[in-house]
Amino acid sequence: MIPYRSFLITLLIASSTFITMLVAQEKKIFSLEELIPGGKEYARFAPHIPASYQWYGNRLMVTQNDSVWELVSPAGRCKKKRWLTFSNLTAELALEKQKVSRISFPNEEGGVAIFTTGNGIGTCDPKRKKVLSFFSYPEESANHTLSPSGHHLAYTRANNLFLLDSEGREQAVTNERDRGIVSGQSVHRNEFGIMGGIFWSPNGSRIAFYRMDERMVSNYPLVDASARVAEPNPERYPMAGMASHEVTIGIHDTVNGRTIWLATGEPAAQYLTNIAWGPDGKSLYVAHLNRGQDTMQLVRYNSETGKKELTLFRETHPKYVEPENPVLFVKGDNNRFIWQSERNGYNHLYLYDSEGTLLKQLTDGSWEVTEVIGFDEAGENLFFLSTLPSPIDRHICSVNLRNGRITQHTTLPGMHSAFLSASGRYLIDRYTSANNPGRIDLIDTQTRRITQLAAANDPYSGHPMPSVKIGILKAADGVTDLWYRMVKPADFDPAKRYPVAVYVYGGPHSQMVNNRWRYGSGGWETHMAQKGYIVFVMDNRGTAYRGLSFEQATHRQLGTIEAEDQMKGVEYLRSLPFVDSGRMGIHGWSYGGFMTINMLLRYPDIFKVGVAGGPVVDWKYYEVMYGERYMDTPQENPDGYAQSSLLNRANHLESRLLMIHGDEDPTVVMQHTLQFLKASIKAGTHPDLFIYPGHGHNMMGPDRVHLHEHITRYFEDFIDR
Amino acid sequence: MIPYRSFLITLLIASSTFITMLVAQEKKIFSLEELIPGGKEYARFAPHIPASYQWYGNRLMVTQNDSVWELVSPAGRCKKKRWLTFSNLTAELALEKQKVSRISFPNEEGGVAIFTTGNGIGTCDPKRKKVLSFFSYPEESANHTLSPSGHHLAYTRANNLFLLDSEGREQAVTNERDRGIVSGQSVHRNEFGIMGGIFWSPNGSRIAFYRMDERMVSNYPLVDASARVAEPNPERYPMAGMASHEVTIGIHDTVNGRTIWLATGEPAAQYLTNIAWGPDGKSLYVAHLNRGQDTMQLVRYNSETGKKELTLFRETHPKYVEPENPVLFVKGDNNRFIWQSERNGYNHLYLYDSEGTLLKQLTDGSWEVTEVIGFDEAGENLFFLSTLPSPIDRHICSVNLRNGRITQHTTLPGMHSAFLSASGRYLIDRYTSANNPGRIDLIDTQTRRITQLAAANDPYSGHPMPSVKIGILKAADGVTDLWYRMVKPADFDPAKRYPVAVYVYGGPHSQMVNNRWRYGSGGWETHMAQKGYIVFVMDNRGTAYRGLSFEQATHRQLGTIEAEDQMKGVEYLRSLPFVDSGRMGIHGWSYGGFMTINMLLRYPDIFKVGVAGGPVVDWKYYEVMYGERYMDTPQENPDGYAQSSLLNRANHLESRLLMIHGDEDPTVVMQHTLQFLKASIKAGTHPDLFIYPGHGHNMMGPDRVHLHEHITRYFEDFIDR
Repeated sequence: MIPYRSFLITLLIASSTFITMLVAQEKKIFSLEELIPGGKEYARFAPHIPASYQWYGNRLMVTQNDSVWELVSPAGRCKKKRWLTFSNLTAELALEKQKVSRISFPNEEGGVAIFTTGNGIGTCDPKRKKVLSFFSYPEESANHTLSPSGHHLAYTRANNLFLLDSEGREQAVTNERDRGIVSGQSVHRNEFGIMGGIFWSPNGSRIAFYRMDERMVSNYPLVDASARVAEPNPERYPMAGMASHEVTIGIHDTVNGRTIWLATGEPAAQYLTNIAWGPDGKSLYVAHLNRGQDTMQLVRYNSETGKKELTLFRETHPKYVEPENPVLFVKGDNNRFIWQSERNGYNHLYLYDSEGTLLKQLTDGSWEVTEVIGFDEAGENLFFLSTLPSPIDRHICSVNLRNGRITQHTTLPGMHSAFLSASGRYLIDRYTSANNPGRIDLIDTQTRRITQLAAANDPYSGHPMPSVKIGILKAADGVTDLWYRMVKPADFDPAKRYPVAVYVYGGPHSQMVNNRWRYGSGGWETHMAQKGYIVFVMDNRGTAYRGLSFEQATHRQLGTIEAEDQMKGVEYLRSLPFVDSGRMGIHGWSYGGFMTINMLLRYPDIFKVGVAGGPVVDWKYYEVMYGERYMDTPQENPDGYAQSSLLNRANHLESRLLMIHGDEDPTVVMQHTLQFLKASIKAGTHPDLFIYPGHGHNMMGPDRVHLHEHITRYFEDFIDR
Repeated sequence: MIPYRSFLITLLIASSTFITMLVAQEKKIFSLEELIPGGKEYARFAPHIPASYQWYGNRLMVTQNDSVWELVSPAGRCKKKRWLTFSNLTAELALEKQKVSRISFPNEEGGVAIFTTGNGIGTCDPKRKKVLSFFSYPEESANHTLSPSGHHLAYTRANNLFLLDSEGREQAVTNERDRGIVSGQSVHRNEFGIMGGIFWSPNGSRIAFYRMDERMVSNYPLVDASARVAEPNPERYPMAGMASHEVTIGIHDTVNGRTIWLATGEPAAQYLTNIAWGPDGKSLYVAHLNRGQDTMQLVRYNSETGKKELTLFRETHPKYVEPENPVLFVKGDNNRFIWQSERNGYNHLYLYDSEGTLLKQLTDGSWEVTEVIGFDEAGENLFFLSTLPSPIDRHICSVNLRNGRITQHTTLPGMHSAFLSASGRYLIDRYTSANNPGRIDLIDTQTRRITQLAAANDPYSGHPMPSVKIGILKAADGVTDLWYRMVKPADFDPAKRYPVAVYVYGGPHSQMVNNRWRYGSGGWETHMAQKGYIVFVMDNRGTAYRGLSFEQATHRQLGTIEAEDQMKGVEYLRSLPFVDSGRMGIHGWSYGGFMTINMLLRYPDIFKVGVAGGPVVDWKYYEVMYGERYMDTPQENPDGYAQSSLLNRANHLESRLLMIHGDEDPTVVMQHTLQFLKASIKAGTHPDLFIYPGHGHNMMGPDRVHLHEHITRYFEDFIDR
């Protein structure tokens, strides 16, 4: 797991985008219990739409509380009709302590729907309210993956992969005694778009799975201090430049019980990513990436023999290539697929035939495809989200495969996401924007008619809230535009002088400033502005959605360009008459923790206060996949590692710095913080410290409120000193 | 290792007692680098006498730099004569990188002297300057113990015990493959006076040794974060109420190579302490203490068969008995020995015959024997240190075994220690007192003539130093006298109001306030007084040298009585016109860390600031031997554990509290601090934290300066808030 991903979870929770709560209309100061996810009163003030809209083929369904309704028929008629309730299914299951709590519909008309209970998964015929199959999760099982037919459940227990059939018979797909060999789970620490290790074939008769040999990877000695006597809880953690795990891919046939292995070959130190079945189930597509991450080969394997059939094409880049999306076959077409690539400097869509011949580049320009949504029924139009026309918005677009015409289906600025009906004619559009806490629209792509389905109320409505604005500054290169957001106290008075809290992330794959609700400004920013701070956040070069050269500007020298860009933000702040430049602080988490300390050490006279959570302090302690992509190995790039290491600059610490770490952080391990403390002690400088026992890379739940009290308290303690 | 012992090391370093450095006479403020052991300039300002005085039988010898001189002949004539230099021995050894650096003389006339090099030990004839034997320490060996004859070296490597003979042949005494079985090392975590696991018989032909089976003891997962990837460094740590290690005693015959085992019997969960050979080598004396620590049996074993010969006597106490000293046979008498016991409420000396019959109580009264020095040649007089006449002094006394007459040989108040000449007529008396940084006298016990041999200069002479005074307050019981010391700024002005730093330890086996140099006030106290603080230190009930009921007042309820007593000190401070009771802080380490947090939580409105180092927060996480002595087991005393636990009161934290821990602390494990953080987070309170990576229970070396900067900074940050 890379820092940003973990961080993103936080961010998503922090600015979760839908509401309806009615709010008392008196003016109030919001507390951290109300502003921070996990807080006792958070739910009362988090935007929320208590309904879930889905397509069942071409029917628009909505789930509200216990009930599932059809809203719009395939013919386009509106007739709200209840199909079933969760209680119907629960009653049929007749299980103790297991209530149906969620249902999801297939994209094809009349297919089986999938429901889940607290501890199981099944299929049902929603129209007839009939349970078709149900699997209670076996004890200590995880990674539950239902076969497309609903006849089998695949899952892992400890390090092995198992199957359960509809009669409840368990079958071991793997039987490795050594815990160092792990099957059916995500590999390569969730990089390269990998999110799991189980891949059902289209007809559900076979299962492709990852097998990871971690025995050569060093164990990081995490400790669980909550036991009667603290207990070791080691985790295999491959650090930059060191031995990494080796991955192979198996295919198990549920009919004959046999497993074959793909001949993925040498070197074993390679990344096998973006697994996809061919539509006919006869082949498996795998992207091979070398450990150096500069060469990707897309390979097709025979799924019955495991033999390599063809290397379709290669992509190379002097810095790195980062394939994150598997091939996507054109609907109803076994011979053409879509490939996403940043090869021309931006993430775009390419149409290939199944022999690897490039047929057409489908999208182009200095903008990016950010997510592929899917095809219409005919396979003629491909829908996607994009940064067209502005990198801080996401619009729903489609491209016509034949004529290449691109249509933008959303017009209101904001961050849109989409669910496409089976035919491709209708879209459910969920979106927020700066002043919109959440809306769900139904879009008819033919008539372009937009019907509002639901809207969240602004939970802060009627209260004097800090204002949030965005703007653009030039990067340190003098050319590149950087977006920032600025939060000001509700009673802002330009004649006064305010202290500043800079919030920073700054690492790859991230975008802090965009056109979501309140421009993405979360609860802590509101809290700080209520306390009289100006809050400032800016996306420096090295972050996402701005193209490859923007992202790769930091290659082999993480922390240098980012800091120079952030200083442009600081210079801007210091130029503002209402900013008290003697009272500036900075806070960030993960990569942002790295950036926080980095800024304090590179520019010791700028910030009074810094709070760095889960910080990387030296990339040699970070994991192979992410670390070597941006830094190469310590052996290949000793100068880059030395220059980016905060350990070598611990003597420059003049500000007050609070470091915060979860003592069971499996992502940015505690060794970072411990080593920085050690370096500071040796250098005679004095960081401060806090630890959240039992927590990983982020503090979730009620402790998250404590965390933000603690961060705020530190600002308050020292911003005036 | 108990907290206090570790602490004591610190204390001894901090107030190391001898000097001669000439000091520049300008007035100056001393820095922490000058005041704290490990500081760059500490050696310049630490009292020091660069000479070592010893008896060689009845010759007074002095070692200075490289040379060994005879100062006084056995006949009492003074004639300073050089006997040899370390270089003489080094030259004879002709070893690379090994220089002789220390020599120690036997108490008998003409015996062989023992010298050590950087990595070896040997014997020599000092008069003839001849090396007689030499043993280079084998690689990775430890616990080197030379046989009395000098013909063998015993030592441990990993978990086994080995012998080296004078021809350099190594012999394995034990050969346990399981690291959980440890031989030749200290057992029972250094409680009960145990300091090692190797006991040579008087003639050096046999060796008694401890064997400890730790396989049933839980491993505490210490982590070494200095490795490339942090590495586990587990340590067997028996926590209160849990399985402890089991100890047996072997006797190995160096002549026939055989090992026999003492039939120490069941229950295996017992403490075997105070091992001593009978003078003829035929028997071994062992004190058996039950796990409940309320019954001690002194047992004699046949050293050839290992069979139990006799239980000489028992001692019991409803709270606990704590035997810490082995039998000491009267010189030249195989049938009578001395036994130290607190059985009448104070530690006194008892004379027994070897069948266990009490012949005579040798000392008595409401004072304590604190250390036995030894017998005179005739075995008529036994010398010892005592708290007679005042518990804050240590005087050299002797008791005549026949008539019971006690003679006090030192008259000047202070903390004396003694080396006795072979005849028993002369004493080397090393002592300090409040205004005496260190002196060495020669005492003629017959004529009572005292000759000064050396004196340390006051390193602070000529500089305006904080004043140190002591006084007595009544304990919370209204009856008991408690000693305190108070440090005031050099420019103290009674019309001003000063902030206060209370320093606290408060646990068993300790005495903070006594008549050593500056009444034991160390460098940090000087530093704080220089910064304008009043420093206050008081020994509450539960501490040492005041008799058993004083110590046992806290039994089964650690933290309660101690806190009530400390509050008497606080009340006194608050009554003083020059004390600013709104600006009081408290600091302590180990047991004193426990006391610091304990005080903040029990009396939340007293202290603005607390700094707790290596604190115990719940006695259930502390080790079996020490913990169960004072608290019984958690199973036996659930209420006492609950009431003493700081975890249950984390919600009472209102002051600023800094917790400090070494992340490799094997004594008070990090689990204490982590659990307190967790409890505080849950309770919504906000302690602060610092960790010293790679350090154990105390921070030694240069980091000790950083530690005291950090502690001081915390006081300065928050004392005025």
